[in-house]
Amino acid sequence: MTVATPITASPEELAQVQYDAHGLVAAVVQEHGSNDVLMLGYMNADTLRQTLDTGRMTFWSRSRQEVWIKGETSGDRMWVREAHYDCDGDALLFKVEQEGRGACHTGDHSCFHRAFGAGAQSES
Amino acid sequence: MTVATPITASPEELAQVQYDAHGLVAAVVQEHGSNDVLMLGYMNADTLRQTLDTGRMTFWSRSRQEVWIKGETSGDRMWVREAHYDCDGDALLFKVEQEGRGACHTGDHSCFHRAFGAGAQSES
Repeated sequence: MTVATPITASPEELAQVQYDAHGLVAAVVQEHGSNDVLMLGYMNADTLRQTLDTGRMTFWSRSRQEVWIKGETSGDRMWVREAHYDCDGDALLFKVEQEGRGACHTGDHSCFHRAFGAGAQSES
Repeated sequence: MTVATPITASPEELAQVQYDAHGLVAAVVQEHGSNDVLMLGYMNADTLRQTLDTGRMTFWSRSRQEVWIKGETSGDRMWVREAHYDCDGDALLFKVEQEGRGACHTGDHSCFHRAFGAGAQSES
């Protein structure tokens, strides 16, 4: 189901988030249901707010230095189902429904499809 | 089973890892089996190598600026089962067996036990 479910975070919850020197916080994206980890991106305060308000995963692109609404051009959108913050507030975890082909620009389901070592299993 | 399973990464695989200006790369830790995301930490090239060689999750502590062998004092060790790197090499994903109480210093299973919004479900 690709419907938006905005999350209303309290000011107290939002105040728990610790941003780094660049104003960014790491955001892990996990698929709702399978629990596969799909990708890791970064958010600033504005794109975190936008993600919660719109229910669409929205990052700050460090390479392009711009707002990055995931799947806006590819159609591979991510719809937020749960949003968590960690014990010291410097990492976020989102559970999402992944639309389209997958999270990765390679077409893979997860960006973590490569493994170290011949003995380790691949995710894809 | 809390046995160490070292991973032999090739030089080509290790060369894929992109470190930031501080020489660090983000490392997501996921529980093998449940697929719960337990925590996010950071590694430098030395602690990544140490993690793969020993099969024990070993981070670089940004707050203490020292090598951090997870669970060395608490006993809540993490044993590596799989190690992945993402499409652009700037994030790592480890699947581990969690020993002891859990990943979090609070005693929670996951460091991401707090959720934004009253409607969102908690992990713990």
